[in-house]
Amino acid sequence: MLTYSFENIGHAPLYAHLYRCIRRDIEAGVLQPGEKLPSKRALARHLGISTITVEGAYGQLMAEGWCTSQPKRGVYVASDIEKAAAAWPKIEPENSERPENPAAVPPSPPLRGTSPMGGGEIFTAPLIDFAARSASAETFPFSIWTKHLRRVIADDADALLSRSPGQGVLALRTAIAGHLRRFRGLAVAPEQIVIGAGTEYLYTLLVQFFGRDRRFCVENPGYGRIRRIYESLGATCLSASLDSAGVRPQELLASGAQIVHISPSHHFPTGLIMPISRRYELLGWATGAPDRYIIEDDYDSEFRLTGRPIPTLMGIDALGRVLYMNTFSKSLTPTIRISYLVLPQALVQPFRDRLGFYSCTVSNFEQYTLARFIEGGDFERHIRRMRTLYRRRRETILQLLKKSPFADRIEILEQGSGLHFLVRFHGAGTDEAIEKKLAKEGIRMKPLASYYAETTMPPKEAAGTFVLDYSAVAEEKMGEAVQRIGKALYT
Amino acid sequence: MLTYSFENIGHAPLYAHLYRCIRRDIEAGVLQPGEKLPSKRALARHLGISTITVEGAYGQLMAEGWCTSQPKRGVYVASDIEKAAAAWPKIEPENSERPENPAAVPPSPPLRGTSPMGGGEIFTAPLIDFAARSASAETFPFSIWTKHLRRVIADDADALLSRSPGQGVLALRTAIAGHLRRFRGLAVAPEQIVIGAGTEYLYTLLVQFFGRDRRFCVENPGYGRIRRIYESLGATCLSASLDSAGVRPQELLASGAQIVHISPSHHFPTGLIMPISRRYELLGWATGAPDRYIIEDDYDSEFRLTGRPIPTLMGIDALGRVLYMNTFSKSLTPTIRISYLVLPQALVQPFRDRLGFYSCTVSNFEQYTLARFIEGGDFERHIRRMRTLYRRRRETILQLLKKSPFADRIEILEQGSGLHFLVRFHGAGTDEAIEKKLAKEGIRMKPLASYYAETTMPPKEAAGTFVLDYSAVAEEKMGEAVQRIGKALYT
Repeated sequence: MLTYSFENIGHAPLYAHLYRCIRRDIEAGVLQPGEKLPSKRALARHLGISTITVEGAYGQLMAEGWCTSQPKRGVYVASDIEKAAAAWPKIEPENSERPENPAAVPPSPPLRGTSPMGGGEIFTAPLIDFAARSASAETFPFSIWTKHLRRVIADDADALLSRSPGQGVLALRTAIAGHLRRFRGLAVAPEQIVIGAGTEYLYTLLVQFFGRDRRFCVENPGYGRIRRIYESLGATCLSASLDSAGVRPQELLASGAQIVHISPSHHFPTGLIMPISRRYELLGWATGAPDRYIIEDDYDSEFRLTGRPIPTLMGIDALGRVLYMNTFSKSLTPTIRISYLVLPQALVQPFRDRLGFYSCTVSNFEQYTLARFIEGGDFERHIRRMRTLYRRRRETILQLLKKSPFADRIEILEQGSGLHFLVRFHGAGTDEAIEKKLAKEGIRMKPLASYYAETTMPPKEAAGTFVLDYSAVAEEKMGEAVQRIGKALYT
Repeated sequence: MLTYSFENIGHAPLYAHLYRCIRRDIEAGVLQPGEKLPSKRALARHLGISTITVEGAYGQLMAEGWCTSQPKRGVYVASDIEKAAAAWPKIEPENSERPENPAAVPPSPPLRGTSPMGGGEIFTAPLIDFAARSASAETFPFSIWTKHLRRVIADDADALLSRSPGQGVLALRTAIAGHLRRFRGLAVAPEQIVIGAGTEYLYTLLVQFFGRDRRFCVENPGYGRIRRIYESLGATCLSASLDSAGVRPQELLASGAQIVHISPSHHFPTGLIMPISRRYELLGWATGAPDRYIIEDDYDSEFRLTGRPIPTLMGIDALGRVLYMNTFSKSLTPTIRISYLVLPQALVQPFRDRLGFYSCTVSNFEQYTLARFIEGGDFERHIRRMRTLYRRRRETILQLLKKSPFADRIEILEQGSGLHFLVRFHGAGTDEAIEKKLAKEGIRMKPLASYYAETTMPPKEAAGTFVLDYSAVAEEKMGEAVQRIGKALYT
């Protein structure tokens, strides 16, 4: 059977190493076209690794066309490997596979964000991902999380097997209410909270709750998926442009918008923080008619890194027109799907009447684990740790950009909040050209223009402006990242 | 601080015991109206129990009106406990609290199905639940499941923190494909499978995939929640009546239905198994126009207890018109939210194009745990064990009913499959009266008529017919259950 050593592979994930070993054998003809690979389980047992590792490797090989799978039979070396060989650059020979040589080692953190068989990106060069929009895997407090999970299993079998109320288990809703009180100064009761498997799922509930016939409105530019979900569910979704304080009540009035979805703590992608005066103006707009509501998407408020906190819209809303949302996917890991919605008191009963028949989409195991994680203070400790980490990353990349040889060719637009800022590249070509040149150097970054609604033209000054999300890039990679940006755009 | 003993409480869940202790103290005046209860964490530490237990007890006390919670401040004895005292029958005095006395001990399994704060039912007498529609908690293979979960945590940190593809992780989709092959003779590739947090969530994807403008159609009678979800998402939902073989192609043709959602393996609630001839007729209907599809909801096919297996519709569908669905909530525990959809090959790419932007709603922890649970053979062992258990439950309750003093007043309509059958009660009053009389004796059972669409009249012969789902009732409770049914209806 295939035998490879897993020693001295540095920081490369096991599956990436295995993928490389098998691919090299295919390219070298050791494994012949049409030859059957061992079953995942057999190979895993043989190499003393997990089947998931083998699956990851096989998945990557299949995604790239080196292998094919035949249902019921197994995985085979593709009969036509020329195509794959042409598409994927040759792997370095064995002796250069030192972890010190970054070009030879599949990169660890960014790979975690992509995935074999997921239709996602496949690495060709070690990727530095400034468009990840999620915490990087290595910062997740895995051992603390699993400690709580183990305790939940040991202590609470009964609770784990009791059907969760549709809104989520009381323990978690109570913990979240406590967190919101301590962390956001929000006084809400557990009964106002609705737990769901990700904000996307909660958006689908919101459309069903308010009704597809309402006129929803999202920020433009903004996070495109929100619009996509509203539209996928058949709701009309308007766009509101932004001035320097955020969406403008006059424009909302003129457009006839009813449900406005915004992120006042830290707008994506501009980084804008809505000042308190605009918040009151928006609440004024909302109270102007009985069917107007604001959805306050507080997705990265935990990571306000500078400045004084501004109260949430929900916290200053006396009339029950604000629904608050937040997620743990962003602050913990996107592989745990827990988000929540906070309803104003007056909407609790209508929500139950209309959508109370839905089962909760999050498993009890994770609900109780998260409840303990919050109650035990670990969530807030984690956030403090992450703030320090992100602040360092932010300062490092900003310093490096400002000291770089191309510092006079770029402009940095930052609002001192959240996990990203904007960089304007002067004289580096069109957005498309910049994105491609960066990608060629293994840098992923998205142009600001790509966050505008398809129906509107991005303003001229957006040209050359890119969103740099540093949340998934380790500090020690920043130097290389800036070098590569320079190489891509200014040499 | 409140101090109670947790010894000799038999099988009562801890929280139910604590609830009873506190309630007794409130009724006895030991705890005075308006008095503050200790914080959950303090009481939990004091009594050496988990905070979840305290929360459960407090939740129950609040749900019944014995206590109230004040946000930011804590839980208080209600100032007006008379109302609660009037509504809830007096608890037996301490010395009768032996586990042998079932009336004095809050029942363990049914309580798991309800929940404080969930707006569900609150027990007044020990409930025997013949309408649970889910596996009872004590049958869940908790230690095997958690063994796999622990191993996943130990071995696969990397995989756990890699973002799942929208359709679910490959390992789980591969495991499910293997299970379907072995268990249902279905040959499908992992890429056809979509993992979601419960069938309800998958229904919402189906409406988005096919479009709200299609004419969906469900069985009448049927499981009402399916219609409710389709309608909540704005789709037109027709009803198809059933003859002795299931829905009739002629009626589908006449109604203009396009997407027909059925459960041919075991119809709920009639228990009907669709014969192979009707399956072919339905496939014939589906191929009559390019926009017709069948959703095959195979929700309890694992528990076919008698007779020979009939192939799935998907298995005999050569033209890609059948989408197959199943869930692990039914076969494992409803507190784990994992269901799946199998797309015909031709719909895989259109599905990705339309809904590929959605993140998977199930956390990686549970996806990988379930993958191992299936791959290791534990899922199939569990099903075999459950079949034996259910077969015994079925035979026991059937025998007891047939030998009961009221055997000549009832008719049993059973099709030899699944986890429920129908009982017709003669001369016991209207459906409503029967349901109430049963409830008074602590028996929960739903009339067949309640599963008909609101717009249609149930047939006359449905009167007095009830759906008896025995999946959540332990064998040793059956004798008492039958006695209580007799007492409720025939004395």
